[in-house]
Amino acid sequence: MARRSSRARGSASKGRGSAPSHAPASPHIKRCIPFYDILDAEQVARLEAQVDWLLEDKGIAFFDDTQALDLWRREGATIGGEDGNIVRASAAWIRDLCRKAPREFTQLARNPERSVVIGGKNQVFAPIYGAPFVRDLENGRRYGDIAAFNDLVRLTYMLPHLHHGGFVTCEPCDVPVSKRHLDMLLAHMTLSDKPHLGAITEMSRAQDSVDMAEIVFGRDVMADNCVIMGNVNTNSPLLIDKVVTQAIRVYCGRGQGIVVVPFILSGAMGPVTTAASAAQAMAEAMMACAYAQLIRPGAPFVLGNFLSSMSLKSGAPTFGMPEPVISNYVIGQLARRAGLPLRCGGSLTASKIEDAQAAYESADAMHSTMLAGANYVLHAAGWLEGGLCTGFEKLVMDADRLGSYQKVLAQGLDVSDDALARDAYDEVAPGGHFLGCDHTMRNYRDAFYEPQLSNSENVESWEETGAKDMRRRAYDRWTGMLEAYVPPPIDPATKEALEAFVAKRKVELPDAWY
Amino acid sequence: MARRSSRARGSASKGRGSAPSHAPASPHIKRCIPFYDILDAEQVARLEAQVDWLLEDKGIAFFDDTQALDLWRREGATIGGEDGNIVRASAAWIRDLCRKAPREFTQLARNPERSVVIGGKNQVFAPIYGAPFVRDLENGRRYGDIAAFNDLVRLTYMLPHLHHGGFVTCEPCDVPVSKRHLDMLLAHMTLSDKPHLGAITEMSRAQDSVDMAEIVFGRDVMADNCVIMGNVNTNSPLLIDKVVTQAIRVYCGRGQGIVVVPFILSGAMGPVTTAASAAQAMAEAMMACAYAQLIRPGAPFVLGNFLSSMSLKSGAPTFGMPEPVISNYVIGQLARRAGLPLRCGGSLTASKIEDAQAAYESADAMHSTMLAGANYVLHAAGWLEGGLCTGFEKLVMDADRLGSYQKVLAQGLDVSDDALARDAYDEVAPGGHFLGCDHTMRNYRDAFYEPQLSNSENVESWEETGAKDMRRRAYDRWTGMLEAYVPPPIDPATKEALEAFVAKRKVELPDAWY
Repeated sequence: MARRSSRARGSASKGRGSAPSHAPASPHIKRCIPFYDILDAEQVARLEAQVDWLLEDKGIAFFDDTQALDLWRREGATIGGEDGNIVRASAAWIRDLCRKAPREFTQLARNPERSVVIGGKNQVFAPIYGAPFVRDLENGRRYGDIAAFNDLVRLTYMLPHLHHGGFVTCEPCDVPVSKRHLDMLLAHMTLSDKPHLGAITEMSRAQDSVDMAEIVFGRDVMADNCVIMGNVNTNSPLLIDKVVTQAIRVYCGRGQGIVVVPFILSGAMGPVTTAASAAQAMAEAMMACAYAQLIRPGAPFVLGNFLSSMSLKSGAPTFGMPEPVISNYVIGQLARRAGLPLRCGGSLTASKIEDAQAAYESADAMHSTMLAGANYVLHAAGWLEGGLCTGFEKLVMDADRLGSYQKVLAQGLDVSDDALARDAYDEVAPGGHFLGCDHTMRNYRDAFYEPQLSNSENVESWEETGAKDMRRRAYDRWTGMLEAYVPPPIDPATKEALEAFVAKRKVELPDAWY
Repeated sequence: MARRSSRARGSASKGRGSAPSHAPASPHIKRCIPFYDILDAEQVARLEAQVDWLLEDKGIAFFDDTQALDLWRREGATIGGEDGNIVRASAAWIRDLCRKAPREFTQLARNPERSVVIGGKNQVFAPIYGAPFVRDLENGRRYGDIAAFNDLVRLTYMLPHLHHGGFVTCEPCDVPVSKRHLDMLLAHMTLSDKPHLGAITEMSRAQDSVDMAEIVFGRDVMADNCVIMGNVNTNSPLLIDKVVTQAIRVYCGRGQGIVVVPFILSGAMGPVTTAASAAQAMAEAMMACAYAQLIRPGAPFVLGNFLSSMSLKSGAPTFGMPEPVISNYVIGQLARRAGLPLRCGGSLTASKIEDAQAAYESADAMHSTMLAGANYVLHAAGWLEGGLCTGFEKLVMDADRLGSYQKVLAQGLDVSDDALARDAYDEVAPGGHFLGCDHTMRNYRDAFYEPQLSNSENVESWEETGAKDMRRRAYDRWTGMLEAYVPPPIDPATKEALEAFVAKRKVELPDAWY
């Protein structure tokens, strides 16, 4: 760790190879190609009727939070169930509440050039969230720590097709749980200038996140703008616990954003069928959105979805499989109809290492995520082992493919006169070639996406340079990037204030490992 | 080779592991999800105007084939150009001729249960075509030979998500070029009972292909049915040579099918822009289709497209990149408008081995191929090194992912009452689990695609069983499959007649290596 960490802080001038560009033309993707609607009108009607039935007849339990139940009761919902915590409400009312959430909103970044628009035709990619382990080719698999975490924040900052920092890129397991969020926030706020999320695991940690964001952005800016968001899971099936409602109160209460994500392994936390699990996810997330709008009408809300399939052999979750591919397309269409920004998918895999399985599964999961119109994509890079492990090589490999998706979405097909190239056909005879013609010379520089990690040499050249597979090339790339890393500029007073806040809170908080 | 080949012919009873199922529920995919139309009306209009301009103003050269030029002249086309071989024709007339080709047609297989429908909403996957090299984990990279070829035909026969045998799964380089087609045809016709293609490289080889098909199917069946097809490339840009026109005369002349494929590396055989290259490909293939319809109105025709991007570093073709991903979607839409079955895409990569690069690129290429509605997909499995090499591991790895695509396309989203699972919610409380509920027990068996090569174990179990990556697991799978191989039944008289035909032709033909 120490080795990598010290290298990361070394002089930029000794970086090997060319320093990667990390100033994207656009801080997020402005999609120009149409959405793909996989469902016909009847399928939509049946799924939405199921959502309504869940909201009205089955209801959603709000667990261990009388404050939330009281609000629902005051607003006119029916509270019932054995434990008196199941909220049932008219679907029309819930849908009306959801319409108060913005279809799209801006999350400001510390660097205004990196502020992102979330929702509508905009798409934002962020790295893996929540893995306790990390893996790289040199050090193998091990618990995450703060040195690895900081390096992952640095890499995310430098990778041009990651638009957003996420938050728990790995768990810094060497820092007490009670203080971990402070170090992570400080890293995102100082080692990067991309937008990021805050903590949610405990109400005071969410509070610290919003307070530190206020140090960065100032009270006035924060009053009118989303500058930080929380990302939180429901307890599927049909249960929203106080982690969710408290996070909504802290974040939305201060006008900040919240992402609420039903995580449903079909057959466990939802029925084994994709249609039922997708409808359940919609119902849970819409109920959370409605609650957020009761707390603060117009609060930025992202409807999350994380639906996975299962191996019949082991009962383990599987990724990149046809059922979640379909559910990405389905949930994309349903979210657009509900008028809510969507989080779904990612570069997901059950593979333990960066082999072909990891890449096939990640690509199919991410191609469908991309085409489905997901507005905010956590886990877009770095995910291994069903999310238990952040791969350093996987992070830069996935990010390289994200550049391809960005081009598909943002450029689509140019049919301008120049793109149709009629002049080129005057220069080139039938059976000839276009290599040197004027049109090619004018256009070749921007014609093709230039991946960093795909090798297109012939086999002889590839063998001469060591027959490196993509994993090895990825190792070379991320280690070279860390050598070239230069932190983004920050106002020294802001940095001091953040460090002082962290120091003070670390004194106030006990060391706790849960 | 000999080792593998003899093992392949060994007893099925000693096959290790479970014998893979190779009787798919459907011999091809009947797509139930909608097509994705990436182009808006204006883009379509501009691309089709470009196609018309190419047909009417620029024209297509028909090279080295006076018979083809004479026919075009008789039918009323304008013949011009310096060499007097450029055919220009009214676009409306060419489009009318293309409409004579069937929107969908059946290619009979020797085993009627494996006959495939090509066109419309049907999609058919076939393996790599034309690689001179093969590669596997045990023997490394080497020239293809007839033993490897036969094994690849056996594997293709056994893989349930390859619906069609293709033809030159690798080049059997140990057999003289002049006789190679005979051995390949005999292998497809006896070691497998799936539909396949025939030879096109020389007119007499195409003739042999159709003659051998007649032995299998009989003159009467063949008079009324497509039982074999040729697959042939134009010489882009805007040139169709006699290999194409002769193949059309041999195959279509006998009522058989033809696939004509412009292979365009953008910036070399077409302009560097995707729009221009896609329009050029449409113009070339439609002109070939029109010629086929002049030869025999109603001849089965598949409009091919193979558009690749380029590395600016090396000038080498690249695969799985955003430009060909977009062109798959574009060409799918244009082919549907032209009313022609489409061949495009495949599991394509520039990688030399079955690493993550190979899988990322193959998956993005194939996901877009699948969703674009490609009706006949050569190169759907086994492709490495830009098509120079057939990988044994890659073949079974890709084929495993094809099963996932098949489920996405053919099943879509079930929204039946049972799929919506309302009864399950009566059994499961909020926060509970669906693992043992009635609905799960009724549905789990078919709920999830069960891949053969994806490992979803936890890291400890995976390490205990040897920490095998997907490539190693794929090696185990294909070697195990060959041990379990049993040839499909064939009428002994048919087999004898085929062998006699091959023997006779081998005597008649000189050994030639070109």
